[in-house]
Amino acid sequence: MNNFTHLDDQGQARMVEVGGKEITRRLAVARGEIVMRPETLDMIISGKVTKGEVFGVARVAGIMAAKQTSSLIPLCHPLNLTGIDVQFRPDQDNNKIEIEASVRITGQTGVEMEALTAVSVAALTIYDMCKAVDRAMTIGAIRLIHKSGGKSGVFEREPIKENQ
Amino acid sequence: MNNFTHLDDQGQARMVEVGGKEITRRLAVARGEIVMRPETLDMIISGKVTKGEVFGVARVAGIMAAKQTSSLIPLCHPLNLTGIDVQFRPDQDNNKIEIEASVRITGQTGVEMEALTAVSVAALTIYDMCKAVDRAMTIGAIRLIHKSGGKSGVFEREPIKENQ
Amino acid sequence: MNNFTHLDDQGQARMVEVGGKEITRRLAVARGEIVMRPETLDMIISGKVTKGEVFGVARVAGIMAAKQTSSLIPLCHPLNLTGIDVQFRPDQDNNKIEIEASVRITGQTGVEMEALTAVSVAALTIYDMCKAVDRAMTIGAIRLIHKSGGKSGVFEREPIKENQ
Amino acid sequence: MNNFTHLDDQGQARMVEVGGKEITRRLAVARGEIVMRPETLDMIISGKVTKGEVFGVARVAGIMAAKQTSSLIPLCHPLNLTGIDVQFRPDQDNNKIEIEASVRITGQTGVEMEALTAVSVAALTIYDMCKAVDRAMTIGAIRLIHKSGGKSGVFEREPIKENQ
Amino acid sequence: MNNFTHLDDQGQARMVEVGGKEITRRLAVARGEIVMRPETLDMIISGKVTKGEVFGVARVAGIMAAKQTSSLIPLCHPLNLTGIDVQFRPDQDNNKIEIEASVRITGQTGVEMEALTAVSVAALTIYDMCKAVDRAMTIGAIRLIHKSGGKSGVFEREPIKENQ
Amino acid sequence: MNNFTHLDDQGQARMVEVGGKEITRRLAVARGEIVMRPETLDMIISGKVTKGEVFGVARVAGIMAAKQTSSLIPLCHPLNLTGIDVQFRPDQDNNKIEIEASVRITGQTGVEMEALTAVSVAALTIYDMCKAVDRAMTIGAIRLIHKSGGKSGVFEREPIKENQ
Repeated sequence: MNNFTHLDDQGQARMVEVGGKEITRRLAVARGEIVMRPETLDMIISGKVTKGEVFGVARVAGIMAAKQTSSLIPLCHPLNLTGIDVQFRPDQDNNKIEIEASVRITGQTGVEMEALTAVSVAALTIYDMCKAVDRAMTIGAIRLIHKSGGKSGVFEREPIKENQ
Repeated sequence: MNNFTHLDDQGQARMVEVGGKEITRRLAVARGEIVMRPETLDMIISGKVTKGEVFGVARVAGIMAAKQTSSLIPLCHPLNLTGIDVQFRPDQDNNKIEIEASVRITGQTGVEMEALTAVSVAALTIYDMCKAVDRAMTIGAIRLIHKSGGKSGVFEREPIKENQ
Repeated sequence: MNNFTHLDDQGQARMVEVGGKEITRRLAVARGEIVMRPETLDMIISGKVTKGEVFGVARVAGIMAAKQTSSLIPLCHPLNLTGIDVQFRPDQDNNKIEIEASVRITGQTGVEMEALTAVSVAALTIYDMCKAVDRAMTIGAIRLIHKSGGKSGVFEREPIKENQ
Repeated sequence: MNNFTHLDDQGQARMVEVGGKEITRRLAVARGEIVMRPETLDMIISGKVTKGEVFGVARVAGIMAAKQTSSLIPLCHPLNLTGIDVQFRPDQDNNKIEIEASVRITGQTGVEMEALTAVSVAALTIYDMCKAVDRAMTIGAIRLIHKSGGKSGVFEREPIKENQ
Repeated sequence: MNNFTHLDDQGQARMVEVGGKEITRRLAVARGEIVMRPETLDMIISGKVTKGEVFGVARVAGIMAAKQTSSLIPLCHPLNLTGIDVQFRPDQDNNKIEIEASVRITGQTGVEMEALTAVSVAALTIYDMCKAVDRAMTIGAIRLIHKSGGKSGVFEREPIKENQ
Repeated sequence: MNNFTHLDDQGQARMVEVGGKEITRRLAVARGEIVMRPETLDMIISGKVTKGEVFGVARVAGIMAAKQTSSLIPLCHPLNLTGIDVQFRPDQDNNKIEIEASVRITGQTGVEMEALTAVSVAALTIYDMCKAVDRAMTIGAIRLIHKSGGKSGVFEREPIKENQ
């Protein structure tokens, strides 16, 4: 016996059957950040084009990655996500960019992995686009901050914005 | 003008031409971690099967993700990686699991994004397998620790082990 | 404010939430063409094997591409398509091959992108198979000709055949 | 006219429309085997780590492949599988490993191709991991053993275990 | 016998062997266009954010699609592209947006399919982002305009810009 | 210690480093079969269109799958295959269709997994296209029959045809 739903009685991996669960509208919100040198952050956000392009490419990467979650995370269920948002908030006081992804579905299982994957790949994309000028950036604080819509009720690690 | 190699003169994204660069053997090593409740870490590493299976699934996920890097990160070059290793080190003093990925290639461009992607997806997979018991785990400290083989010389953020 | 549903209030890309839309049976039909030298068209349709194989490979490519639409078009929703048809009509008077794709779903959003993607990739596949003999072929007139099943009612640019 | 549902009246391939079929809970179970030299089988199952790792990697490969079925098999419908299990049974009397995959869905079409694909890719993965020591292994007996939940009723080629 | 390199002596599809061809640096440039209502074009290019975002998303889509060409076009060789550029030129006199993609490789086979695929998917992405306001847009004139680096010499359908 | 190149000293999976191996031209040929009821085989091969279409779709599926091998088999290296052929031979005496795939590369590692994957997916595709009339077909005898070009010399399990 174990408490890992992704392992069966023999402790072996499986994609756990969710066919008996209720279909509900679900939302997951995840956050993360990429910390960099002040000059790197300046370079990104000082030029309007540059900022738009770095965040624009990273946003598309995050959105597309969310849709690939079940191809990347072995035991995740394939899901028809109904909505994905990825936002960036530069924070010059702390030399970092905060990333937030919101993912929605009407289905039998939650979408926290999709939100966490969107944040991770958006962060990796920023790293990729800026690595020529700052190889020591660090990606961190990737975490689930909100989850609602399933049997286990609402999980609220941090407040989310009104319009979500 | 800008210093981002992934943006052209107008600040627009491109997959930068590397056809003129030298073909060399290259290595990139990245690290990251997933922090969790002590009980969660205990559950993973106390059972031999459980530990093998959680790390085994996450290792495969990391290796396979490294091979998908150019499909995930928009401006990464498609590359024929020659070797990928992913390792896990449970650290009970700090309630976390450290993840390390080493990626090798003989080619015209580095593989740091592949190593960072392997670490990120391995961490996400551990999160996925344990989220039923601990939703508040945090993934962090994802960073490049070593890079060698290219024109820009060796980058060494932290010592790597002898046998790499 | 803007009229692009794929952009939010700040003009930033998102995969727009469709979870509140009604589930209906939907159909989209798209057409396109590839124009070529008369000799090239002759070569394709004169040999029974050749014709079957060129159209056969292009048909499979179109069907498979329709299923990859949400991986290719960044803001498209992942969808469980229920039916896909791809047809070819050689037109010797105008030195071209007409391509038509019909895609069906029972869902919350339309499948016009899937139909247009099927046509585009089928056309590209014909180009690929014939480019050794005719590099100057041109793909064009890729357009939606019919869409039904959603809230916005029926869109009918051109008549479709009875049996669709 | 023909009896192949995947071919239309002209004998041309299509992804046949299933939008009018009933949504039911469905299960498909497939089996297969990989036959090898006794020494090879010994090498796999004698070491606890080795066995866990070979079967562990092959299990993940099988589960992930089931989710890719509609990308691999041209006329398969994209489906949101709800559960996947892959099991291995070493059989030293017959110098082989038996592989069994069970796949579940709530949907309009069966999942036998997904179960057969999981078995095939799990077998190929075992071949890959052991080919350095035994190039003459043979994969065979890949077959559907159970299918239930659709209009055509239960198909039962061989008994399945109680707990499925 | 036939002149289609992608068909063998029996007229059957194959991915033709290119292992004996010389490795050279190659370039392919393709163009295409999407024609729309004047108001639609106005909406895209009048707002700085809107224009940046529509072209930004379409550019990323085109770049990523070029890397997926061998997964989409059945008989294309998998290739390690070394560089990809996608550009947009609004043309208000003709109510259209011109799209141009340049793809580079050092390899044994040309990259015209990659350039044509980048243009096609970039056009489809513009269609997707604007279809809520203009369903009758037409994608056309997708053609190869330049190809160099292979045994067959330079193909030049239209002049390309200096800086390519 | 172990003899599995895909497992490291601790018995853990890795994508083994091949960067030091010689680049040579390599060929792998694999075979397999699908056994069915005589009536099913008749149905496939009696109609010219039907036969062309069933084999045509399965051939494309096999070729495309060979290119996806490193995405399917976790420890396989990503490779730029230079040539792929897939052939079918109906055998009415034994109620089966034989499938043969030949894969070529110029590289540092063999392509036997690619050939075996092509055969497996081609067989699965035949199963899929005929399953409505014969659910009890069995796929088997999937084996490597020839491998040449690497350090380990030529492996010859069965004679291959002259023109390969």
